[in-house]
Amino acid sequence: MATTGLAGDLAALDRFGKDEDGGFNRLAWSVELRRALEWLAETMAEAGLRTELDPAGNLIGRWEAGSGAPLIIGSHLDTVESGGRFDGALGVLAGVDVVRRLRAADFVPARPIWIVAFMDEEGERFGTAMVGSQAIAGELTELPAELEDSDGVTLGAAMAGWGRSPDRLGEARLAQPPWGYLELHIEAGPVLEEGGSDVGAVTVVAGIAAFEVTIEGRASHAGSTPFGARRDALLAASRLVVELRERAVRGNYLATVGRLAVEPGGISVIAARATLTVDFRADAAPRLDAAAADLGDALAGIGELTGTEYRCRPIYRLEPLPMDAELIAAIEAAAAEVGVRCLRMASGAAHDAMVIGRQAPAGMIFVPSVDGISHSPAERTRAEQVEIGAQVLAATVRRLCA
Amino acid sequence: MATTGLAGDLAALDRFGKDEDGGFNRLAWSVELRRALEWLAETMAEAGLRTELDPAGNLIGRWEAGSGAPLIIGSHLDTVESGGRFDGALGVLAGVDVVRRLRAADFVPARPIWIVAFMDEEGERFGTAMVGSQAIAGELTELPAELEDSDGVTLGAAMAGWGRSPDRLGEARLAQPPWGYLELHIEAGPVLEEGGSDVGAVTVVAGIAAFEVTIEGRASHAGSTPFGARRDALLAASRLVVELRERAVRGNYLATVGRLAVEPGGISVIAARATLTVDFRADAAPRLDAAAADLGDALAGIGELTGTEYRCRPIYRLEPLPMDAELIAAIEAAAAEVGVRCLRMASGAAHDAMVIGRQAPAGMIFVPSVDGISHSPAERTRAEQVEIGAQVLAATVRRLCA
Repeated sequence: MATTGLAGDLAALDRFGKDEDGGFNRLAWSVELRRALEWLAETMAEAGLRTELDPAGNLIGRWEAGSGAPLIIGSHLDTVESGGRFDGALGVLAGVDVVRRLRAADFVPARPIWIVAFMDEEGERFGTAMVGSQAIAGELTELPAELEDSDGVTLGAAMAGWGRSPDRLGEARLAQPPWGYLELHIEAGPVLEEGGSDVGAVTVVAGIAAFEVTIEGRASHAGSTPFGARRDALLAASRLVVELRERAVRGNYLATVGRLAVEPGGISVIAARATLTVDFRADAAPRLDAAAADLGDALAGIGELTGTEYRCRPIYRLEPLPMDAELIAAIEAAAAEVGVRCLRMASGAAHDAMVIGRQAPAGMIFVPSVDGISHSPAERTRAEQVEIGAQVLAATVRRLCA
Repeated sequence: MATTGLAGDLAALDRFGKDEDGGFNRLAWSVELRRALEWLAETMAEAGLRTELDPAGNLIGRWEAGSGAPLIIGSHLDTVESGGRFDGALGVLAGVDVVRRLRAADFVPARPIWIVAFMDEEGERFGTAMVGSQAIAGELTELPAELEDSDGVTLGAAMAGWGRSPDRLGEARLAQPPWGYLELHIEAGPVLEEGGSDVGAVTVVAGIAAFEVTIEGRASHAGSTPFGARRDALLAASRLVVELRERAVRGNYLATVGRLAVEPGGISVIAARATLTVDFRADAAPRLDAAAADLGDALAGIGELTGTEYRCRPIYRLEPLPMDAELIAAIEAAAAEVGVRCLRMASGAAHDAMVIGRQAPAGMIFVPSVDGISHSPAERTRAEQVEIGAQVLAATVRRLCA
C-alpha cells in the first residue's frame, strides 16, 4: 500500500541525497537539493500551489486566497552533511500537507498562504546560513561569489548551476512583510520527550554569542618542568571549560566548548597553545551580555593562576527573538483543540523563524526528537508525533486565517 | 680567532642540520646525522681515540688504556625536529674534550675510557627511542624494517643508507658490561637556574608511565540540549586534566596532558569523543603505581558525573632508575674540587643513562638550561656553564680512573 499525505511525502523525499549511513546530504546549491526542490515543486503544484524558485533559491508555493499579506509557513530542505530526515524537511512538507487538508475540508482562507522552502538554512557548505530567509527579509542582498566549499567549488559556480547569482540575492526581497510566519520543526533536544509533551509552543528563539579563545602558554618538557614552572595552555583551557559550566548554571545560560585544538601536541610536551570556541545561548540579551562578561572574568582569573596569556575574539552574535504572543496563544489553542499536551519552551537552536520574526509576527511549533538527537543519521521523530505536529499546524493556520 | 676545545667543537657541529629558525635537524639515520658523525669521528681520531661505527649506528671512540672494562662517557648527537644545540651533543663533545684535557695533563687512566654517541635517543623519526644504548646493552636485537617516517621512508631504507640493517642491531651488544657510565647533559628544566646551582648530580632518572584515554560522550546540539541531558566528552576530559593536576600535587608525581583531540569539533556541537594522553613521572615505582591508580579513580568518578564512558590504554612504562651512590659522590667531590655549587636532583626526563644504568653503575651531571627550555631552537646553556660542566666531568673521570 502506498503511503500518502505527509508520511508519503517524507518517504518520497528519502530519495534525495541519502547516504550509506542513512544520513541525508542536501547541501545548499547542490544537485541533490535541486532535484528535491524539483520534486517539491511538482508536489506543491499537485496541491494547487503556484510555485516559483526565487533569485535566492527559495521555493515558494502560493495559495492565492483572501486578501492582504500572506501567512508564510516555512522551513528548509537543505541539510548538514549526513544530516537527519526531519530537520527542516518536516516543516516544509507539513506546510504543503496543511494546504491539502484545508482544501479537502473546503476551507477558504482569509489571506494568502505561502509555503516556503528556504535556501541554505544550515550554512554547512559555504559557512553562510539563513541565506534564503535573510534574502526574503531584505537583510542580505549579496554574497561573495568566491566563497569556496571543501572541494574548492565557489558559491558563484554552484549558484550558476541553478541559474542564480550571489550578487542578485537582493531581488528575492518581498515587496512587503508577510502577515505572519509559522514554522513546524523538530525540537532537536530532549525536553519534550522527557516531559511527555506532544508539541512545544516556542516562546523565544535563544540568542547566540560565539567566541574564539586562544590561550598562550609555553612548551616545556613533561619530565623536567616542575608544576610551579609550567605555563600549561591545556590546563588553562581545561579550567576554562569547567568554570564556564559552573558559571553558566549560576547565570542561567548555556555554554558549550565544542572545538579545542592543542599545540604542539606531544605526549611529553606541555601545551604551548590551546585554541577553542565558546558558544553561549540565552533567551534574553542581558544574559548573553553576562555570559560574555563571565568569559572575560574567567579568562583573567585563569591566566593569573596558570601563567598563561589569552586572546578572545567574538565570532558572531544573534540577538534572542521572542515569538509573537498571539501566535503562541493560537498554537496552544490549536493543541487543545487537537487534544494533545503542549509545552511553552524556548528554542535553543536558531531557525528561519529568527529571521522572518524580525519582520512579522512569528510562531514555532516543536515536535519531540527521539533521544534529543539531530544533525545525525540517528535523528528521529515517531510517526504519530509527526502526525500530531501536522494537525496542530493545520489547526493553528485555520485559526489565523479564519 | 678560531675557538678551540669544547666551544670550538660545539661551533663546528652547528654546520650539521641547522634550520632557518636556528633549530637543529639531525634525526636518526639521516644524512645530516651521518655527516655530523663523520666529522665527530675525525675529531675523536685527532684526540687519539680509535673509532668505530657499530652495527646499531653508535659511534664509539676508544681510549684503550689501563685494564678491565671501560668507563663509558656517552650521550647522543641525534635531535628532535628543530631541536636545540645542546641536548645530547654537549655530553658527547664534552667527553671528547675530557680525553684531550686528560691527555694534555699526561693523565694515565687505570681503565679504558670510551666516548659514545648513541644512535636515536630521541625517537622522533620512527617512534623508536634509546635504540643505540639498548642495542649496546643487549636489550634490543632488531627493529621492524617497515617502520616509516613521516615522509614514508622506511627504517630499513634509512639504515641501508648507512650500510646497516634493523635485523642486525643485536651485533652491537658489548661482550661485557662497562665498568661504569657517565653522562653530562643539559637539565632541560628550570631547577638549577632557579636555585642558583652550577651543576646537578642526578640521584635518579624518573620513571614514566604513559596512557591514552578515550572518553565517549554523545554529540548533540549546543542550543537545544540542556546541561542535564548532555554527555559532554570535552567537559569530562577537562575535568580529568584539572583533577589530575590536583592529585599529582598530593601524590608527589608529575602529570601532563600534552595531547587532546575532540570530535566532531563543531562550534555548536557537544563533543562526542575526546582522546588524550597522560604522561606520569615519578622517581619511585610505587608513586608511578599510585599515579596510574589515581587515573582510574578520576576517570570513574568523572564518568559517573558526566554520563560519559572511557577506555584507558597503557602506552609505555619505564621504571625509575637510581644512579649509583659512588658515582654521585664522585660527581659531588669533583664539583667541590672545581669550586662550584652542586645540587642533588632527580632527572624527570629519560636519558641513555637510564638504559646503560641497568647494566652498570651510572652517574649523570646536569648543567643549567636558560629558562628551562629544551627541544626548541631557544634551548640555551651559557658558555661559562658549559665550561663548568666539562670541568666537573673531567674531574669526575680523573677520580674514577685514578
